[in-house]
Amino acid sequence: MNPLPEALRASIGLRVDQIDTPALVIDLDAMERNITRMADFARKHQVLWRPHAKAHKCAELALWLQRAGATGACVQKTAEAETLAAGGVHDITITNEVIAPPKLLRLARLAARLQAQGGRLTLAVDSADGIHRLAEAMAQAAPQARIGVLVEIDVGQGRCGVPPGEPALALAHTVARQARLHFAGLHAYQGRAQHLHSAAERRDAIAAVVQAARHTRDLIAASGLAVPLVTGSGTGTLVHEAASGVFGELQAGSFLFMDADYARNEREPAQPTFEHALFIKTQVISRQGDRAVCDAGHKSHAIDAGMPQVALLPPERALRYSSGGDEHGILTAAGRKALLPAIGRMLWLIPGHCDPTVNLHDYMIGVRGGLEHGMVERIFRVDARGALT
Amino acid sequence: MNPLPEALRASIGLRVDQIDTPALVIDLDAMERNITRMADFARKHQVLWRPHAKAHKCAELALWLQRAGATGACVQKTAEAETLAAGGVHDITITNEVIAPPKLLRLARLAARLQAQGGRLTLAVDSADGIHRLAEAMAQAAPQARIGVLVEIDVGQGRCGVPPGEPALALAHTVARQARLHFAGLHAYQGRAQHLHSAAERRDAIAAVVQAARHTRDLIAASGLAVPLVTGSGTGTLVHEAASGVFGELQAGSFLFMDADYARNEREPAQPTFEHALFIKTQVISRQGDRAVCDAGHKSHAIDAGMPQVALLPPERALRYSSGGDEHGILTAAGRKALLPAIGRMLWLIPGHCDPTVNLHDYMIGVRGGLEHGMVERIFRVDARGALT
Repeated sequence: MNPLPEALRASIGLRVDQIDTPALVIDLDAMERNITRMADFARKHQVLWRPHAKAHKCAELALWLQRAGATGACVQKTAEAETLAAGGVHDITITNEVIAPPKLLRLARLAARLQAQGGRLTLAVDSADGIHRLAEAMAQAAPQARIGVLVEIDVGQGRCGVPPGEPALALAHTVARQARLHFAGLHAYQGRAQHLHSAAERRDAIAAVVQAARHTRDLIAASGLAVPLVTGSGTGTLVHEAASGVFGELQAGSFLFMDADYARNEREPAQPTFEHALFIKTQVISRQGDRAVCDAGHKSHAIDAGMPQVALLPPERALRYSSGGDEHGILTAAGRKALLPAIGRMLWLIPGHCDPTVNLHDYMIGVRGGLEHGMVERIFRVDARGALT
Repeated sequence: MNPLPEALRASIGLRVDQIDTPALVIDLDAMERNITRMADFARKHQVLWRPHAKAHKCAELALWLQRAGATGACVQKTAEAETLAAGGVHDITITNEVIAPPKLLRLARLAARLQAQGGRLTLAVDSADGIHRLAEAMAQAAPQARIGVLVEIDVGQGRCGVPPGEPALALAHTVARQARLHFAGLHAYQGRAQHLHSAAERRDAIAAVVQAARHTRDLIAASGLAVPLVTGSGTGTLVHEAASGVFGELQAGSFLFMDADYARNEREPAQPTFEHALFIKTQVISRQGDRAVCDAGHKSHAIDAGMPQVALLPPERALRYSSGGDEHGILTAAGRKALLPAIGRMLWLIPGHCDPTVNLHDYMIGVRGGLEHGMVERIFRVDARGALT
């Protein structure tokens, strides 16, 4: 890995008000509390947790989570897996289909490397074509190695995954017939359920997920093929998968940073309290009429889950953020106009959706001691930023 | 600048069907036709053109545009200006306010460097505070240099910029009183007008822009202060600013790549025909029921101006792209279901909005000879990707 740029290295030890804007900042105290709560939750429910690294894209954070008890990391992309592996993460699950032969050859080589290091690589499939392509790449590039294969079932997301039941049973046996493929279980993730606002709707959606996963698992087991694991879940619904007795592993990743969208969910009493730990520091660059304009637009934060919220302001100074395009945010007073911030004033934004926000930045600045008076303790490289292939 | 990664260097000369996905691809033939048409248009209307580099973020492309006749480059950010300057671009306008003292010191040093190279740096302002901060930074870091200053007027965008008329007059004189600041004219950009669908609405919006800019220019000139330039415009409205007799420079940048959003505008007969020249190459990784799923989601392309369009398909095979989240796109048949693409099939997407799409990628792959049968000719680094400060 390349060394940190000089300006960033020099920022370690600076007061938080000296961080130039816009910048992606981690509140390390809040993040550590989130990790502790997640570790406690998983221990209490006796489930494994393998946080999704698509959220942080950072090998250092993946290793931090492993030290706190996580089994390894989930990723979505071949290039993410390679990047985390290069950063020392040795147990990686790709919760996604990989089809392109050049990528499958890369994965075969990665599987062999991880296996040699005592680790493992696991990949999701949802087609016989995908399984045969993978088997061919393994035979070609890593004939001595094995790769774990999860059959992905569509449990209501309507994206990848075969229907639960017979189609998954057929694929599981197709996997088991391949010499270098190990049937590792079922991947059953319901992404849409994560963001259902009402706690009752999320509970009902996951009840259907659990039923489909249990049925499929039992069908495969009854056919004589062991199902080592059912994996899935996310920050919005982990309470239900953890209590299901069917899911052995939680893939939730957003608990680490908690974005505005997840925080808008009606709270589940059994859910650990996760705090916002990722912020955009921004600054007012223009002040006209009834608006202030800040220097963070949607090249600084993703807007697929809505606009960011302005954090850390007392109610009488509350501000509303609306889009000013790629490079600007428009801030208007939620209450009285007289309280608009002046030019140069620093503000903190909570991103609507953390994962694609992190993917816009090369570094995350870790602050200790709070956003008001803290200091820069460490810089995290977003190792897998832009790792699309 | 770092050398290209080995895998990318090796891709030069490959056939277009060998490019792995997802990838950001430039159709070089289409891009060159767009550049020629823009150069011809500017020549015919006797206006300068300074294409906005926030669209491509690439020094090589900025220099390419200069060779075709562009005056220099526009940028939005201090870090973009530094990056382009390091890549050999010597005439740079920041069409945005810069307020933070550390950035203003960087700009002062950059102004001195560019001036020493026979170039120049120009910055927009919209407050007396901003002007005094800039003057102080110049005095501190570049006392021998001068920097151009454009007074930004708000011509209907409702973002940065003082109101036209007296407030702009006052700021122009505040600039002119500073020893190291040169009053370079007016920056008058109406971003909202670019995307008004109807040609008549765009014409009316720019008529108001031109009136406000003319009034302000004449007021400043009548006060005895020369107004060297009125600059602004974009790809959606350049016909009107070019014909106004008021605007001396066009900042349009999107004509280079033409995104789906601009292409949806009702066409102005006088507007040059700009073609789509930037595409996401993607591939089907899952095929379930009435949907195919491809490997490009909103970590591959920005969605602030809507979902991408699927290009290059005959009408009977037309596909509709809908969001599958950060890493997936859901493709459904616009017509008959039987024509859904198979696993592994390559497809081409036209991004809704090119600027933030480019900002997601580290490289753009330049293809010669068309997207169906062409070859990789060169790789463009997105030098200023993530250049947020």
